[in-house]
Amino acid sequence: MARIIERKPIPKGDAQFEANRKQIVQGVLDKIPKELVLPDSIIENPPLDVTRIPRECGLLTDEELDITENYDLVALSEAIASRKLTSVQVTSAFCKRAAIAHQLTFCLTEFYMQEALEQAKQLDEHMERTGKVVGPLHGVPISIKEMVPVKGQLLSLGLIVSRTVSDKDCYLVEIFRKMGAVFYVKTHQPTAVFSMESMSFLGRTLNPHNIGLAPGGSSGGEAALLAMKGSVFGIGTDIGGSVRLPASFCGTYGLKGSSGFWPVEGLLSSAFPAGVSVDGIIGPLGRTLRDIDYICRLVRGTKPWLKDPEALPIPYTGLQETGLEKSSLKVGFLEHYSLVHPQPPVKQAMDWVHSQLKAGGFKISPFQFHEPGKAHKIYGSLVCPDGWATVRGGMQAGNEPQNPVLDALVADMIAQDDRAADSQVESSLVVVENKFVRDQYRSAVLTDWIAQGDPDVIITPMSPATAHDTANLKNTASATHFYNLVDYPAIVVPTPIKVQPREKEDSREYYDSESWIDADQETKQLWKDFDYQGAPVCVQIVAKRHMENELIAAVGLMQEALQLP
Amino acid sequence: MARIIERKPIPKGDAQFEANRKQIVQGVLDKIPKELVLPDSIIENPPLDVTRIPRECGLLTDEELDITENYDLVALSEAIASRKLTSVQVTSAFCKRAAIAHQLTFCLTEFYMQEALEQAKQLDEHMERTGKVVGPLHGVPISIKEMVPVKGQLLSLGLIVSRTVSDKDCYLVEIFRKMGAVFYVKTHQPTAVFSMESMSFLGRTLNPHNIGLAPGGSSGGEAALLAMKGSVFGIGTDIGGSVRLPASFCGTYGLKGSSGFWPVEGLLSSAFPAGVSVDGIIGPLGRTLRDIDYICRLVRGTKPWLKDPEALPIPYTGLQETGLEKSSLKVGFLEHYSLVHPQPPVKQAMDWVHSQLKAGGFKISPFQFHEPGKAHKIYGSLVCPDGWATVRGGMQAGNEPQNPVLDALVADMIAQDDRAADSQVESSLVVVENKFVRDQYRSAVLTDWIAQGDPDVIITPMSPATAHDTANLKNTASATHFYNLVDYPAIVVPTPIKVQPREKEDSREYYDSESWIDADQETKQLWKDFDYQGAPVCVQIVAKRHMENELIAAVGLMQEALQLP
Repeated sequence: MARIIERKPIPKGDAQFEANRKQIVQGVLDKIPKELVLPDSIIENPPLDVTRIPRECGLLTDEELDITENYDLVALSEAIASRKLTSVQVTSAFCKRAAIAHQLTFCLTEFYMQEALEQAKQLDEHMERTGKVVGPLHGVPISIKEMVPVKGQLLSLGLIVSRTVSDKDCYLVEIFRKMGAVFYVKTHQPTAVFSMESMSFLGRTLNPHNIGLAPGGSSGGEAALLAMKGSVFGIGTDIGGSVRLPASFCGTYGLKGSSGFWPVEGLLSSAFPAGVSVDGIIGPLGRTLRDIDYICRLVRGTKPWLKDPEALPIPYTGLQETGLEKSSLKVGFLEHYSLVHPQPPVKQAMDWVHSQLKAGGFKISPFQFHEPGKAHKIYGSLVCPDGWATVRGGMQAGNEPQNPVLDALVADMIAQDDRAADSQVESSLVVVENKFVRDQYRSAVLTDWIAQGDPDVIITPMSPATAHDTANLKNTASATHFYNLVDYPAIVVPTPIKVQPREKEDSREYYDSESWIDADQETKQLWKDFDYQGAPVCVQIVAKRHMENELIAAVGLMQEALQLP
Repeated sequence: MARIIERKPIPKGDAQFEANRKQIVQGVLDKIPKELVLPDSIIENPPLDVTRIPRECGLLTDEELDITENYDLVALSEAIASRKLTSVQVTSAFCKRAAIAHQLTFCLTEFYMQEALEQAKQLDEHMERTGKVVGPLHGVPISIKEMVPVKGQLLSLGLIVSRTVSDKDCYLVEIFRKMGAVFYVKTHQPTAVFSMESMSFLGRTLNPHNIGLAPGGSSGGEAALLAMKGSVFGIGTDIGGSVRLPASFCGTYGLKGSSGFWPVEGLLSSAFPAGVSVDGIIGPLGRTLRDIDYICRLVRGTKPWLKDPEALPIPYTGLQETGLEKSSLKVGFLEHYSLVHPQPPVKQAMDWVHSQLKAGGFKISPFQFHEPGKAHKIYGSLVCPDGWATVRGGMQAGNEPQNPVLDALVADMIAQDDRAADSQVESSLVVVENKFVRDQYRSAVLTDWIAQGDPDVIITPMSPATAHDTANLKNTASATHFYNLVDYPAIVVPTPIKVQPREKEDSREYYDSESWIDADQETKQLWKDFDYQGAPVCVQIVAKRHMENELIAAVGLMQEALQLP
């Protein structure tokens, strides 16, 4: 019987809750075919880095390893379209690898192997019969975060009371379905889908590169699955960093567009208080830049504004037809946010990026983020209009145990607004005023950006910290939410840098730096105390609001210099 | 000494307030040069239609009449650029005509004749010196609504306590200033800038075509001034119809873009509760379609998104480079909203539009607005997050008398949401939920629009009622706010139809129609009781969200058929 690696316990509920929880978790494990169950020896004594286990465990064929490791989304689509591979072959390979990934990292909350293989079979038959694909994603399995509605599949907002089955696809999934994508998993997300890691009432997702670390959140299941190569392409959501943090901590691409870039029609079926003045978006996680560009081209090519009133009618050009040229590209280099010093590998990655770009002949200028402390404060005030009373109420209704990771995050957010208190529903005028403050701040950021030479893009650390141990990274140590606050598009791109064993001995300069805020000191302590080896380091590239075309084009221009896949 | 026509009294405050009010009103009148004071005979015994008085009163020269009557914005810009006219000539002519217009309609709240002539003189000297214009609007006077900040000029939000002097231009005005525009007046707006007419604590603007009628609101001073030809081009604001209703009732063009079409940067210096989930916009009122297109091209050409984070980076094409062709243009014809029957002249105008388009070979299909009653309800619920407590507080602080027109409008809005009550600040969750309902409704409207054949534009009555007598038009009798709710661009265009004297005798069919709602019955009664003669009738043309290019292009294609100036 399949089991899951557990590193640290999660908070326990009462006996009935625990029985229920166990049943849910077991229900997913029971769907894993016997022949894909990992030996107890691995589960009980796993290495820190579990990414190689799918290759080494012997449960996958050479063909399955090839399919899951050596293709990206574009290549898989082409291979199926040219009949080099069938959808059943591809779907089967990813289902099997996802099953292995789940036992190692707890990345799934549902596993639809049978349904996916049936869908793949029908697509293969269509191809057989007509000689044609149903669409550009014909037969390719795509992984989807639990909160994104897929018809007939599990849906929840990270609370046990919100677990249900979607009665329809959200519009984005409908697009993918029409293009021929296969849906085979729902991936794990944290309580209330609001956390920098991915611990829910069900369990805790682990970082495949170092299972002592969290994979980031809230799209942590997605990112862990991708890092395990149990998916070639995934869909997450982001209202504060939820695509980008996990993409970064697991070493994949992750894109958060501005509001209106990808359609969100049908994503939510009830109001989400934290989102009243910060737009949550749906965004992709993937292996290659061309995949990110390809999927954006496909999605925007459907003219989503004809279906989703929030989607903007801006034509997508991305890697093609760009007006940007390397010789005139202006790159701003944001070394840090003056809040928390980047840990040594983050600094190393930023230095590497800088020297690569310099060597590549790019124009780079230093860039300062406009009043980062204020950004944190405003963001915090915006996401607490009800003091999280709605979420608290949902947890109580489901008899859920408290989640200390969520509690710490919420406490920090609430602390940013003097008028806010836990479980206290604010007055409407607080929403009105905070939104006004947001808009004033957005103007100030834009003015400052232009005043600093109007870079086409800036490059910033994703977070001063590398992937972290669970429940201990302070929010101020991430700066992802700043770009939700100002609604700028931001992409996470991998670097070749990984945390090396024992590297900490070389960290004297870091330790000796004067700490700007408490979280800075705490982040240093984390670096001292924990073993981060194997953690990948990504950087974030950001453009101005609604400038996704410029963002992707700029990354395209830097692709070679930054050795981007 | 200059005086103003008064038709109906406005609510009175206490003695001190009245003294203050009188002083403010007199302060503006005192700036009118003696030679522009209209004779008492006109003020005391005016005709219903005062639009011809500037021509007939003998206070303007033939040249001044020519300048103010026979040019549009484009033609004036060209005449000054080609040195056929000087800015001083043009500015002087419009200042003089505005002074006359103010005595007849109370359209101004400030009059900057001396400052404007000084500005004009400097521009003329620049031209003399360099042979060049400073920008495309060199020397042309533009009228600006009071609430839109112009550096050094009066600013208020329609409350006496909010009266101040702007310390800077809002970004749009800054654009116009850089392009060489001259600023010579601030125009009157109603209490709290929220009304379908234009009565404030200062006075009541009259409709120039029939001074027994209101000019619409809230940009009523702007529209009255334009109809008097005391301005060639004006700037208003619109959060529920405030550009379009006055434009329509006074017979001019008026454009409300979607949010992000024109920059609103610097418009508000404090939060506006009613605007928390409905975007207020700044928009133009003008004489000709080419003027509207010209100014949009100029404004969008500055790439306002580099200054205003809310402005969208969508290139403007308008009348040029349109992808639309007459042969494939799809026009939806929205006869009425099934709430209030159009009064006979409105029906006549719509019939005329229909037959002209038919004769012109256009494809027209019937169009139904999606659940109009629900639109009214949702809009009402959105604009009352604080039960207007903020405005009430401002009025109390200024010791202002109640404004029954505002009270009636607010009462109707508050009645749309069971949770709302006058002066009651709602909880943040009401804002959250209402915004969610708004978004669901927006989706439903778009889906319905597409299901009805996805017309490029629809043509609708501006309001089932023509310009109305003061304080008696029910909100449901207007449908302008529906397009604020869904954030669709909408343009008001004139028709040749005007209300004829004694036309009511032909209204049997209208009276006999079964009334849909109370406001329908009341609107019929208004038509029976009041003399609407001379009131112009405009229609509204609407496109989907952010489709300003398609909207302007479509109106361009219909220009000849609809005999549009």
